[in-house]
Amino acid sequence: MTEHDTSSRPVLRLKPKADARRIRHGYPWVHRDELVTDRRTQAIAPGTIAVLEDAERQPLGTVAVTIESRIAARMLDRDPLAEIDGTWIAARLEMALAHRARAFDAPFYRLVHAEADGLPGVVIDRFGDAAVLQPNSAWADARADLFADALIALGLSHVLLNASGRSRDAEGLDDTARWLRGGLDDAVAVPMNGATYMADLIGGQKTGLFYDQRPNHAFVAGLARDARVLDVFSHVGGFGLAALAAGATSALAVDGSAPALALAERGAAAMGRADDFAIRRGDAFAVMADLATEGATFDIVVADPPAFAPSKQALTQGLRAYEKVARNAAPLVAPGGYLTLCSCSHAADLSKFRMACIRGIGRAGRSGQLVHTGYAGADHPVHPQLTESGYLKALTFRLMP
Amino acid sequence: MTEHDTSSRPVLRLKPKADARRIRHGYPWVHRDELVTDRRTQAIAPGTIAVLEDAERQPLGTVAVTIESRIAARMLDRDPLAEIDGTWIAARLEMALAHRARAFDAPFYRLVHAEADGLPGVVIDRFGDAAVLQPNSAWADARADLFADALIALGLSHVLLNASGRSRDAEGLDDTARWLRGGLDDAVAVPMNGATYMADLIGGQKTGLFYDQRPNHAFVAGLARDARVLDVFSHVGGFGLAALAAGATSALAVDGSAPALALAERGAAAMGRADDFAIRRGDAFAVMADLATEGATFDIVVADPPAFAPSKQALTQGLRAYEKVARNAAPLVAPGGYLTLCSCSHAADLSKFRMACIRGIGRAGRSGQLVHTGYAGADHPVHPQLTESGYLKALTFRLMP
Repeated sequence: MTEHDTSSRPVLRLKPKADARRIRHGYPWVHRDELVTDRRTQAIAPGTIAVLEDAERQPLGTVAVTIESRIAARMLDRDPLAEIDGTWIAARLEMALAHRARAFDAPFYRLVHAEADGLPGVVIDRFGDAAVLQPNSAWADARADLFADALIALGLSHVLLNASGRSRDAEGLDDTARWLRGGLDDAVAVPMNGATYMADLIGGQKTGLFYDQRPNHAFVAGLARDARVLDVFSHVGGFGLAALAAGATSALAVDGSAPALALAERGAAAMGRADDFAIRRGDAFAVMADLATEGATFDIVVADPPAFAPSKQALTQGLRAYEKVARNAAPLVAPGGYLTLCSCSHAADLSKFRMACIRGIGRAGRSGQLVHTGYAGADHPVHPQLTESGYLKALTFRLMP
Repeated sequence: MTEHDTSSRPVLRLKPKADARRIRHGYPWVHRDELVTDRRTQAIAPGTIAVLEDAERQPLGTVAVTIESRIAARMLDRDPLAEIDGTWIAARLEMALAHRARAFDAPFYRLVHAEADGLPGVVIDRFGDAAVLQPNSAWADARADLFADALIALGLSHVLLNASGRSRDAEGLDDTARWLRGGLDDAVAVPMNGATYMADLIGGQKTGLFYDQRPNHAFVAGLARDARVLDVFSHVGGFGLAALAAGATSALAVDGSAPALALAERGAAAMGRADDFAIRRGDAFAVMADLATEGATFDIVVADPPAFAPSKQALTQGLRAYEKVARNAAPLVAPGGYLTLCSCSHAADLSKFRMACIRGIGRAGRSGQLVHTGYAGADHPVHPQLTESGYLKALTFRLMP
């Protein structure tokens, strides 16, 4: 028994048919239909801390409850009496930080990647002395100030609450972004793979920065010496600027978002490479078709589209879209050049996505060899019981003459 | 019609039920039971060049035949009249070289990776001005001298024919290694990831060098600053020396092979790090048990065992062996440290191998997060129609306190 009074803590009990063994082995989620529910449990407010018990009333741990959610409870601690306070949050953040501080040279990374870092539903990206906190689960949203305090204690100065997470709706949370501590007016210069990216934290996902592609940027950059690079769905210039930093002669960024392209141009300017960096704003498929009509070719073509298959329902249509990207991009690759195709769709697993890419390349009349398969970087760890959460795939093909 | 007289070339015909469409789409192999066979085809000598036709007598391409093999024909060229001579071989080597020269800073890499490089059954590793040629298919073995000439023409000085490939038996080939051009007496110093490896080319697989782990060495090295590293199944020091080069304080290499460990020590000495490098020769499981008894822990533990599941028949037993490696290695990892587990088994796919590792870690009473999944490097491309040939998997877990 710890010193805290947790006798008032609600209890959730698994049905006899629920897989308690899987939870004991580390699976962090309890689905709603695995729980005994009655009027009492239905009334538990979102974000409440509770004790999870198996059907024989043996405690399994401390969970955060959002009873109306499909994932009705998330494991916070194996200790059923753990106090989920500032000290507990600080300890989790320190554990997460130790890994990033070892793996990266500069403090620019995803600091917390939810379940895999023992903080279900919580994502924190670090940009030097600023942090963007996404509390996508009610328990964490209710403790946003404790997270902010813990981040300040780690030496950060600015903490932004970003409320754009898709799962917040299901958790009954609002979508209002706000500075919890400090505040920044301008975009942050982010050093990564020798390039400089401008990340507009307040602008949210559309103009922030995705750290997950870091190792795939690095792989492509390693091929980029003296290359002409086309970066389709470029966002703030992820692949293109990394390629320029590694010796590419030119990069053309294509995206539908004017603010993202403006930030990409600012990044190129900060690198002193504004003259070698061009943009085309527009629909990616239309721009690729235009480039083909113009007879343009590139030594490296990258396409990193938004999630075309975010759900199982969207899978067939999504795979068709990935095939179409490959088919439109392949003709733009010079003989012996490289084509990098990415997917951030949970529903499209590696094998299905790879097959769609190969089909698209074939339909473009090209053949090739697959030289690299990459995933998200080391600051995006995967929970061992949730390996399907490895959503990001990047394939690099070399296309023959 | 080309200028060569190929009218005397034998013809192989697909059965009507064979999947000619798959071959048209790039699948490079013809299985024996897909071919119409009679006394004439049965008499075709291994390594013969033939024309492959579909059941309607439409030519599909030029193939190399080994009619007694399970893979009875391998696609060499979509042109049914292609002359498979020195010029043809040189063109394929140049295409393969262009990719490696772009992807790597120094001429130490796998130059040809068989089907994916358009040279079925042929593996060539390059060590500066020396090449080790493995003609694991009869057509290539019969043309070993043409390969040697083409390599000399590319500027290399030494060409060793290595005949240890497992598939040579099925192709009716001998296992005698010999220098085709030049010759080296001593081991070669190989620079990779900032480390120096000593590769004894003549000693063969046991003391040569595996380039395939390069990106995984690099990943582990990126975590190694000030770390104590244990490298189990170390071979010539792959992970341990890369970690030392990246700032590890010490590395202990464990292997059963005295010659491999001697080469690892020479590598450490060449790096000026002999004092920080130790070896233990013996059975890996026994040494890991001894280390556990001694209460030894390391910040990074790596286990890169031989293929425990080389075939489907060996899968169950192999997965049990991988689980045992994980279970024996996990207790040696310091709190918050890293455990890298590798498999070079074709039969154990990523999902099965990962599950075996997670089970082993769990049985050791540890939990963790998966921070990296890596494959073979860019000098080991994969044929798009043979993606199952991506045999190498390396998983890095971080183990919690």
